[in-house]
Amino acid sequence: MKIEVIENVLKYNKDQAEKNRKLFKDNNILVLNLLSSPGAGKTSLIIETIKKLKSKKIIGVIEGDISSTYDAEKIKKFTENVIQINTGGTCHLNASMVASAVEKLKVSDLDIIIIENVGNLICPVGFDLGEDYKIVISSVNEGDDKPVKYPPVFIKSDLIILNKVDLMEISDFNQAFFEKKVSELNPQSEIIKLSCKTGTGLDGWFNWVLGKSKI
Amino acid sequence: MKIEVIENVLKYNKDQAEKNRKLFKDNNILVLNLLSSPGAGKTSLIIETIKKLKSKKIIGVIEGDISSTYDAEKIKKFTENVIQINTGGTCHLNASMVASAVEKLKVSDLDIIIIENVGNLICPVGFDLGEDYKIVISSVNEGDDKPVKYPPVFIKSDLIILNKVDLMEISDFNQAFFEKKVSELNPQSEIIKLSCKTGTGLDGWFNWVLGKSKI
Repeated sequence: MKIEVIENVLKYNKDQAEKNRKLFKDNNILVLNLLSSPGAGKTSLIIETIKKLKSKKIIGVIEGDISSTYDAEKIKKFTENVIQINTGGTCHLNASMVASAVEKLKVSDLDIIIIENVGNLICPVGFDLGEDYKIVISSVNEGDDKPVKYPPVFIKSDLIILNKVDLMEISDFNQAFFEKKVSELNPQSEIIKLSCKTGTGLDGWFNWVLGKSKI
Repeated sequence: MKIEVIENVLKYNKDQAEKNRKLFKDNNILVLNLLSSPGAGKTSLIIETIKKLKSKKIIGVIEGDISSTYDAEKIKKFTENVIQINTGGTCHLNASMVASAVEKLKVSDLDIIIIENVGNLICPVGFDLGEDYKIVISSVNEGDDKPVKYPPVFIKSDLIILNKVDLMEISDFNQAFFEKKVSELNPQSEIIKLSCKTGTGLDGWFNWVLGKSKI
Protein backbone atom coordinates (compact mmCIF):
# COMPACT_ATOMS: atom_id res chain seq x y z
CA MET A 1 0.00 0.00 0.00
CA LYS A 2 2.79 2.40 0.92
CA ILE A 3 4.59 1.73 -2.34
CA GLU A 4 1.43 2.28 -4.34
CA VAL A 5 0.87 5.65 -2.69
CA ILE A 6 4.43 6.74 -3.45
CA GLU A 7 4.11 5.62 -7.07
CA ASN A 8 0.91 7.60 -7.44
CA VAL A 9 2.52 10.72 -6.01
CA LEU A 10 5.46 10.45 -8.42
CA LYS A 11 3.20 9.69 -11.40
CA TYR A 12 1.01 12.69 -10.59
CA ASN A 13 4.12 14.87 -10.27
CA LYS A 14 5.50 13.67 -13.60
CA ASP A 15 2.23 14.47 -15.38
CA GLN A 16 2.14 17.98 -13.91
CA ALA A 17 5.84 18.48 -14.75
CA GLU A 18 5.11 17.68 -18.40
CA LYS A 19 2.31 20.28 -18.42
CA ASN A 20 4.73 22.84 -16.98
CA ARG A 21 7.35 21.88 -19.58
CA LYS A 22 4.89 22.41 -22.43
CA LEU A 23 3.90 25.82 -21.09
CA PHE A 24 7.55 26.85 -20.77
CA LYS A 25 8.33 25.58 -24.28
CA ASP A 26 5.32 27.30 -25.85
CA ASN A 27 6.58 30.56 -24.35
CA ASN A 28 10.27 30.01 -25.23
CA ILE A 29 11.30 30.24 -21.59
CA LEU A 30 14.53 28.71 -20.30
CA VAL A 31 13.82 27.17 -16.89
CA LEU A 32 16.57 26.35 -14.38
CA ASN A 33 16.05 24.36 -11.15
CA LEU A 34 18.72 25.26 -8.55
CA LEU A 35 19.49 22.63 -5.91
CA SER A 36 21.87 22.88 -2.96
CA SER A 37 22.42 22.55 0.78
CA PRO A 38 21.17 25.41 2.94
CA GLY A 39 23.49 28.40 2.64
CA ALA A 40 25.46 27.30 -0.44
CA GLY A 41 24.57 30.52 -2.28
CA LYS A 42 21.48 29.93 -4.45
CA THR A 43 19.92 33.31 -3.64
CA SER A 44 23.20 35.18 -4.11
CA LEU A 45 23.74 33.59 -7.52
CA ILE A 46 20.20 34.52 -8.58
CA ILE A 47 20.74 38.15 -7.54
CA GLU A 48 24.06 38.38 -9.41
CA THR A 49 22.40 36.87 -12.49
CA ILE A 50 19.53 39.36 -12.48
CA LYS A 51 21.92 42.30 -11.98
CA LYS A 52 24.14 41.24 -14.87
CA LEU A 53 21.56 40.04 -17.39
CA LYS A 54 18.62 42.38 -16.74
CA SER A 55 19.42 44.54 -19.78
CA LYS A 56 19.34 41.44 -22.02
CA LYS A 57 16.81 39.03 -20.50
CA ILE A 58 13.65 39.26 -18.43
CA ILE A 59 14.09 36.85 -15.55
CA GLY A 60 11.38 35.49 -13.26
CA VAL A 61 12.20 33.81 -9.96
CA ILE A 62 10.30 31.17 -8.00
CA GLU A 63 11.55 30.97 -4.41
CA GLY A 64 10.98 27.71 -2.52
CA ASP A 65 11.24 27.62 1.28
CA ILE A 66 9.63 25.63 4.06
CA SER A 67 8.56 28.95 5.59
CA SER A 68 9.29 32.74 5.52
CA THR A 69 9.53 35.19 2.61
CA TYR A 70 13.09 36.14 3.52
CA ASP A 71 14.77 35.25 0.21
CA ALA A 72 11.93 36.59 -1.97
CA GLU A 73 12.23 39.94 -0.20
CA LYS A 74 15.96 40.06 -0.99
CA ILE A 75 15.29 39.33 -4.66
CA LYS A 76 12.40 41.82 -4.86
CA LYS A 77 14.96 44.61 -4.59
CA PHE A 78 16.18 43.60 -8.06
CA THR A 79 13.01 42.48 -9.87
CA GLU A 80 9.24 42.46 -9.45
CA ASN A 81 9.03 39.04 -11.11
CA VAL A 82 9.38 36.91 -7.98
CA ILE A 83 6.95 34.50 -6.33
CA GLN A 84 7.53 32.81 -2.98
CA ILE A 85 6.34 29.25 -2.41
CA ASN A 86 6.13 28.18 1.23
CA THR A 87 5.95 24.42 1.31
CA GLY A 88 4.63 24.36 4.88
CA GLY A 89 7.42 22.07 6.02
CA THR A 90 7.75 19.86 2.95
CA CYS A 91 11.39 19.29 2.07
CA HIS A 92 11.22 19.87 -1.71
CA LEU A 93 9.21 21.64 -4.39
CA ASN A 94 6.89 19.64 -6.60
CA ALA A 95 5.49 20.36 -10.06
CA SER A 96 2.06 21.44 -8.75
CA MET A 97 3.59 24.06 -6.47
CA VAL A 98 5.55 25.41 -9.43
CA ALA A 99 2.41 25.43 -11.63
CA SER A 100 0.59 27.54 -9.01
CA ALA A 101 3.50 29.96 -8.78
CA VAL A 102 3.81 30.28 -12.56
CA GLU A 103 0.15 31.37 -12.76
CA LYS A 104 1.12 34.48 -10.80
CA LEU A 105 4.05 35.40 -13.09
CA LYS A 106 3.55 37.22 -16.41
CA VAL A 107 4.81 34.22 -18.34
CA SER A 108 4.49 35.74 -21.81
CA ASP A 109 6.93 38.50 -20.79
CA LEU A 110 9.67 36.21 -19.45
CA ASP A 111 12.82 34.83 -21.10
CA ILE A 112 14.13 32.84 -18.13
CA ILE A 113 12.65 31.39 -14.95
CA ILE A 114 15.02 30.44 -12.14
CA ILE A 115 13.53 28.14 -9.51
CA GLU A 116 15.31 28.18 -6.16
CA ASN A 117 14.44 24.83 -4.63
CA VAL A 118 14.28 24.20 -0.87
CA GLY A 119 17.79 23.99 0.67
CA ASN A 120 18.24 20.23 0.73
CA LEU A 121 20.77 18.12 -1.14
CA ILE A 122 18.62 14.95 -1.09
CA CYS A 123 14.84 15.21 -1.43
CA PRO A 124 14.38 17.68 -4.33
CA VAL A 125 16.36 15.45 -6.70
CA GLY A 126 13.48 13.05 -7.42
CA PHE A 127 10.89 15.68 -8.29
CA ASP A 128 10.80 16.89 -11.89
CA LEU A 129 9.41 20.44 -11.99
CA GLY A 130 9.32 20.73 -15.79
CA GLU A 131 12.67 22.52 -15.86
CA ASP A 132 15.15 22.41 -18.76
CA TYR A 133 18.18 21.94 -16.50
CA LYS A 134 18.88 20.86 -12.94
CA ILE A 135 21.88 22.69 -11.48
CA VAL A 136 23.54 21.75 -8.19
CA ILE A 137 25.51 24.37 -6.26
CA SER A 138 28.14 23.02 -3.88
CA SER A 139 30.26 25.40 -1.84
CA VAL A 140 33.93 25.15 -0.86
CA ASN A 141 33.24 25.38 2.87
CA GLU A 142 30.96 22.31 2.72
CA GLY A 143 34.02 20.21 1.90
CA ASP A 144 35.27 18.31 -1.12
CA ASP A 145 33.45 15.08 -0.18
CA LYS A 146 29.90 16.11 -1.12
CA PRO A 147 29.85 14.04 -4.37
CA VAL A 148 30.88 10.96 -2.35
CA LYS A 149 28.26 11.50 0.34
CA TYR A 150 25.33 12.75 -1.77
CA PRO A 151 25.73 11.06 -5.17
CA PRO A 152 22.18 11.32 -6.61
CA VAL A 153 22.14 15.12 -6.94
CA PHE A 154 25.49 15.06 -8.77
CA ILE A 155 24.32 12.24 -11.06
CA LYS A 156 21.05 13.97 -11.96
CA SER A 157 22.34 17.52 -12.43
CA ASP A 158 23.19 18.96 -15.85
CA LEU A 159 25.64 21.49 -14.43
CA ILE A 160 27.70 21.58 -11.22
CA ILE A 161 28.57 24.95 -9.73
CA LEU A 162 31.29 25.19 -7.09
CA ASN A 163 30.64 28.43 -5.19
CA LYS A 164 32.69 30.39 -2.61
CA VAL A 165 36.03 29.69 -4.31
CA ASP A 166 37.32 32.77 -2.47
CA LEU A 167 37.51 30.47 0.59
CA MET A 168 39.72 27.98 -1.24
CA GLU A 169 43.04 29.26 0.09
CA ILE A 170 41.97 29.06 3.75
CA SER A 171 40.36 25.61 3.38
CA ASP A 172 41.68 22.11 2.82
CA PHE A 173 39.35 21.57 -0.15
CA ASN A 174 41.00 19.25 -2.69
CA GLN A 175 39.83 20.42 -6.11
CA ALA A 176 41.27 17.44 -7.98
CA PHE A 177 39.44 15.01 -5.65
CA PHE A 178 36.13 16.89 -6.03
CA GLU A 179 36.43 16.99 -9.82
CA LYS A 180 37.40 13.32 -10.06
CA LYS A 181 34.43 12.24 -7.95
CA VAL A 182 32.00 14.42 -9.94
CA SER A 183 33.39 13.07 -13.18
CA GLU A 184 32.99 9.45 -12.01
CA LEU A 185 29.32 10.07 -11.18
CA ASN A 186 28.50 12.24 -14.16
CA PRO A 187 31.09 12.19 -16.97
CA GLN A 188 29.06 14.60 -19.16
CA SER A 189 28.69 17.33 -16.56
CA GLU A 190 30.50 20.64 -16.66
CA ILE A 191 31.83 22.27 -13.47
CA ILE A 192 31.80 26.07 -13.19
CA LYS A 193 33.83 27.47 -10.29
CA LEU A 194 32.87 30.90 -9.02
CA SER A 195 32.47 33.26 -6.10
CA CYS A 196 29.36 35.40 -5.80
CA LYS A 197 31.25 37.44 -3.20
CA THR A 198 34.28 38.42 -5.30
CA GLY A 199 32.81 37.93 -8.77
CA THR A 200 35.46 35.38 -9.80
CA GLY A 201 34.15 32.99 -12.46
CA LEU A 202 30.71 34.61 -12.77
CA ASP A 203 31.25 35.36 -16.48
CA GLY A 204 31.43 31.62 -17.17
CA TRP A 205 28.03 31.20 -15.53
CA PHE A 206 26.47 34.19 -17.35
CA ASN A 207 27.71 32.82 -20.67
CA TRP A 208 26.31 29.37 -19.86
CA VAL A 209 22.88 30.90 -19.18
CA LEU A 210 22.94 33.06 -22.33
CA GLY A 211 24.03 30.06 -24.37
CA LYS A 212 21.05 28.02 -23.18
CA SER A 213 18.49 30.82 -23.64
CA LYS A 214 15.80 30.13 -26.22
CA ILE A 215 15.23 33.63 -27.61
CA MET B 1 -4.97 6.71 2.55
CA LYS B 2 -1.75 8.66 2.27
CA ILE B 3 -2.29 10.27 5.65
CA GLU B 4 -2.98 6.94 7.30
CA VAL B 5 0.27 5.50 5.94
CA ILE B 6 2.24 8.47 7.25
CA GLU B 7 0.60 8.20 10.68
CA ASN B 8 1.46 4.52 10.84
CA VAL B 9 5.07 5.20 9.93
CA LEU B 10 5.40 7.83 12.66
CA LYS B 11 3.59 5.68 15.26
CA TYR B 12 5.85 2.72 14.46
CA ASN B 13 8.92 4.98 14.73
CA LYS B 14 7.79 6.39 18.06
CA ASP B 15 7.31 2.88 19.50
CA GLN B 16 10.78 1.81 18.35
CA ALA B 17 12.30 5.05 19.68
CA GLU B 18 10.87 4.31 23.14
CA LYS B 19 12.44 0.83 23.04
CA ASN B 20 15.79 2.42 22.13
CA ARG B 21 15.38 4.96 24.93
CA LYS B 22 14.75 2.23 27.50
CA LEU B 23 17.84 0.31 26.36
CA PHE B 24 19.98 3.46 26.58
CA LYS B 25 18.58 4.30 30.02
CA ASP B 26 19.09 0.75 31.36
CA ASN B 27 22.74 1.02 30.31
CA ASN B 28 23.26 4.62 31.59
CA ILE B 29 24.25 5.81 28.14
CA LEU B 30 23.97 9.47 27.14
CA VAL B 31 22.70 9.60 23.53
CA LEU B 32 23.09 12.67 21.31
CA ASN B 33 21.45 13.10 17.89
CA LEU B 34 23.44 15.56 15.73
CA LEU B 35 21.53 17.36 12.98
CA SER B 36 22.86 19.80 10.37
CA SER B 37 23.16 20.74 6.73
CA PRO B 38 25.74 18.83 4.69
CA GLY B 39 29.24 20.04 5.53
CA ALA B 40 28.44 21.97 8.73
CA GLY B 41 30.96 19.95 10.71
CA LYS B 42 29.20 17.04 12.43
CA THR B 43 32.01 14.55 11.72
CA SER B 44 34.73 17.01 12.75
CA LEU B 45 32.97 17.71 16.04
CA ILE B 46 32.63 13.98 16.75
CA ILE B 47 36.35 13.43 16.09
CA GLU B 48 37.35 16.32 18.38
CA THR B 49 35.04 14.96 21.08
CA ILE B 50 36.51 11.45 20.94
CA LYS B 51 40.07 12.82 20.97
CA LYS B 52 39.42 14.98 24.02
CA LEU B 53 37.17 12.71 26.10
CA LYS B 54 38.55 9.25 25.31
CA SER B 55 40.44 9.04 28.60
CA LYS B 56 37.23 9.74 30.52
CA LYS B 57 34.36 8.29 28.50
CA ILE B 58 33.86 5.42 26.09
CA ILE B 59 32.07 6.86 23.10
CA GLY B 60 30.23 4.94 20.38
CA VAL B 61 29.31 6.55 17.06
CA ILE B 62 26.46 5.77 14.67
CA GLU B 63 27.11 7.34 11.26
CA GLY B 64 24.09 8.01 9.04
CA ASP B 65 24.53 8.63 5.32
CA ILE B 66 22.50 7.99 2.19
CA SER B 67 25.49 6.05 0.83
CA SER B 68 29.27 5.51 1.33
CA THR B 69 31.31 4.71 4.45
CA TYR B 70 33.42 7.83 4.07
CA ASP B 71 32.69 9.40 7.47
CA ALA B 72 32.81 6.12 9.38
CA GLU B 73 36.28 5.48 7.96
CA LYS B 74 37.45 8.90 9.20
CA ILE B 75 36.12 8.15 12.68
CA LYS B 76 37.55 4.63 12.74
CA LYS B 77 41.01 6.18 13.02
CA PHE B 78 40.01 7.32 16.52
CA THR B 79 37.74 4.53 17.81
CA GLU B 80 36.62 1.03 16.95
CA ASN B 81 33.11 1.79 18.28
CA VAL B 82 31.61 3.07 15.05
CA ILE B 83 28.78 1.69 12.92
CA GLN B 84 27.77 3.08 9.52
CA ILE B 85 24.12 3.14 8.51
CA ASN B 86 23.49 3.60 4.79
CA THR B 87 19.88 4.66 4.36
CA GLY B 88 19.85 3.75 0.65
CA GLY B 89 18.69 7.21 -0.33
CA THR B 90 16.35 7.97 2.55
CA CYS B 91 16.82 11.51 3.81
CA HIS B 92 16.86 10.83 7.58
CA LEU B 93 17.60 8.12 10.13
CA ASN B 94 14.72 6.39 11.86
CA ALA B 95 14.53 4.53 15.16
CA SER B 96 14.65 1.07 13.55
CA MET B 97 17.88 1.87 11.71
CA VAL B 98 19.39 3.02 14.99
CA ALA B 99 18.17 -0.13 16.78
CA SER B 100 19.91 -2.29 14.15
CA ALA B 101 23.13 -0.31 14.50
CA VAL B 102 23.06 -0.45 18.30
CA GLU B 103 22.93 -4.26 18.16
CA LYS B 104 26.39 -4.16 16.60
CA LEU B 105 27.90 -1.92 19.29
CA LYS B 106 29.04 -3.27 22.68
CA VAL B 107 26.37 -1.30 24.48
CA SER B 108 27.27 -2.38 28.00
CA ASP B 109 30.76 -0.87 27.54
CA LEU B 110 29.62 2.56 26.35
CA ASP B 111 29.09 5.82 28.25
CA ILE B 112 28.00 7.96 25.31
CA ILE B 113 26.56 7.31 21.85
CA ILE B 114 26.74 10.10 19.28
CA ILE B 115 24.43 9.65 16.30
CA GLU B 116 25.43 11.61 13.20
CA ASN B 117 22.18 12.01 11.29
CA VAL B 118 22.00 12.39 7.50
CA GLY B 119 23.07 15.91 6.41
CA ASN B 120 19.67 17.54 6.07
CA LEU B 121 18.23 20.45 8.03
CA ILE B 122 14.60 19.45 7.44
CA CYS B 123 13.62 15.76 7.35
CA PRO B 124 15.46 14.28 10.37
CA VAL B 125 13.68 16.67 12.76
CA GLY B 126 10.44 14.66 12.90
CA PHE B 127 12.02 11.29 13.68
CA ASP B 128 12.69 10.50 17.33
CA LEU B 129 15.58 8.02 17.57
CA GLY B 130 15.35 7.51 21.34
CA GLU B 131 18.08 10.09 21.99
CA ASP B 132 18.38 12.22 25.13
CA TYR B 133 19.17 15.41 23.23
CA LYS B 134 18.81 16.75 19.70
CA ILE B 135 21.65 19.11 18.78
CA VAL B 136 21.68 21.27 15.66
CA ILE B 137 24.99 22.45 14.21
CA SER B 138 24.81 25.57 12.08
CA SER B 139 27.97 27.00 10.52
CA VAL B 140 28.98 30.61 9.99
CA ASN B 141 29.45 30.21 6.24
CA GLU B 142 25.83 29.04 5.84
CA GLY B 143 24.70 32.54 6.83
CA ASP B 144 22.91 34.06 9.81
CA ASP B 145 19.43 33.48 8.37
CA LYS B 146 19.17 29.71 8.95
CA PRO B 147 16.82 30.04 11.97
CA VAL B 148 14.48 32.19 9.84
CA LYS B 149 14.51 29.78 6.91
CA TYR B 150 14.52 26.41 8.76
CA PRO B 151 12.63 27.05 12.01
CA PRO B 152 11.61 23.48 13.02
CA VAL B 153 15.13 22.19 13.68
CA PHE B 154 15.89 25.20 15.88
CA ILE B 155 12.60 24.81 17.76
CA LYS B 156 13.09 21.10 18.42
CA SER B 157 16.80 21.12 19.33
CA ASP B 158 18.00 21.16 22.93
CA LEU B 159 21.32 22.78 22.04
CA ILE B 160 22.43 24.97 19.14
CA ILE B 161 26.07 24.85 18.06
CA LEU B 162 27.45 27.57 15.82
CA ASN B 163 30.54 26.09 14.16
CA LYS B 164 33.32 27.62 12.01
CA VAL B 165 33.49 30.84 14.04
CA ASP B 166 37.03 31.24 12.65
CA LEU B 167 35.29 32.41 9.45
CA MET B 168 33.39 35.15 11.30
CA GLU B 169 35.79 37.98 10.49
CA ILE B 170 35.72 37.36 6.74
CA SER B 171 31.93 36.92 6.61
CA ASP B 172 28.96 39.25 7.01
CA PHE B 173 27.38 36.95 9.61
CA ASN B 174 25.39 39.02 12.12
CA GLN B 175 25.71 37.23 15.46
CA ALA B 176 23.11 39.39 17.24
CA PHE B 177 20.55 38.66 14.51
CA PHE B 178 21.25 34.90 14.63
CA GLU B 179 20.99 34.80 18.43
CA LYS B 180 17.79 36.88 18.45
CA LYS B 181 16.09 34.61 15.92
CA VAL B 182 17.17 31.44 17.76
CA SER B 183 15.91 32.89 21.04
CA GLU B 184 12.53 33.79 19.51
CA LEU B 185 12.08 30.21 18.29
CA ASN B 186 13.51 28.46 21.33
CA PRO B 187 13.92 30.68 24.41
CA GLN B 188 15.31 27.81 26.54
CA SER B 189 18.08 26.80 24.17
CA GLU B 190 21.74 27.44 24.78
CA ILE B 191 24.09 28.45 21.93
CA ILE B 192 27.69 27.23 21.98
CA LYS B 193 30.00 28.96 19.49
CA LEU B 194 33.08 27.07 18.43
CA SER B 195 35.52 26.18 15.70
CA CYS B 196 36.63 22.60 15.20
CA LYS B 197 39.45 23.95 13.04
CA THR B 198 41.06 26.30 15.58
CA GLY B 199 39.72 24.76 18.80
CA THR B 200 38.02 27.98 19.91
CA GLY B 201 35.05 27.28 22.16
CA LEU B 202 35.46 23.50 22.20
CA ASP B 203 35.86 23.43 25.99
CA GLY B 204 32.32 24.75 26.37
CA TRP B 205 31.08 21.81 24.31
CA PHE B 206 33.18 19.21 26.16
CA ASN B 207 31.87 20.54 29.48
CA TRP B 208 28.28 20.40 28.20
CA VAL B 209 28.75 16.74 27.23
CA LEU B 210 30.41 15.81 30.54
CA GLY B 211 27.67 17.64 32.45
CA LYS B 212 24.97 15.59 30.72
CA SER B 213 26.76 12.23 31.09
CA LYS B 214 24.96 9.71 33.26
CA ILE B 215 27.90 7.94 34.84
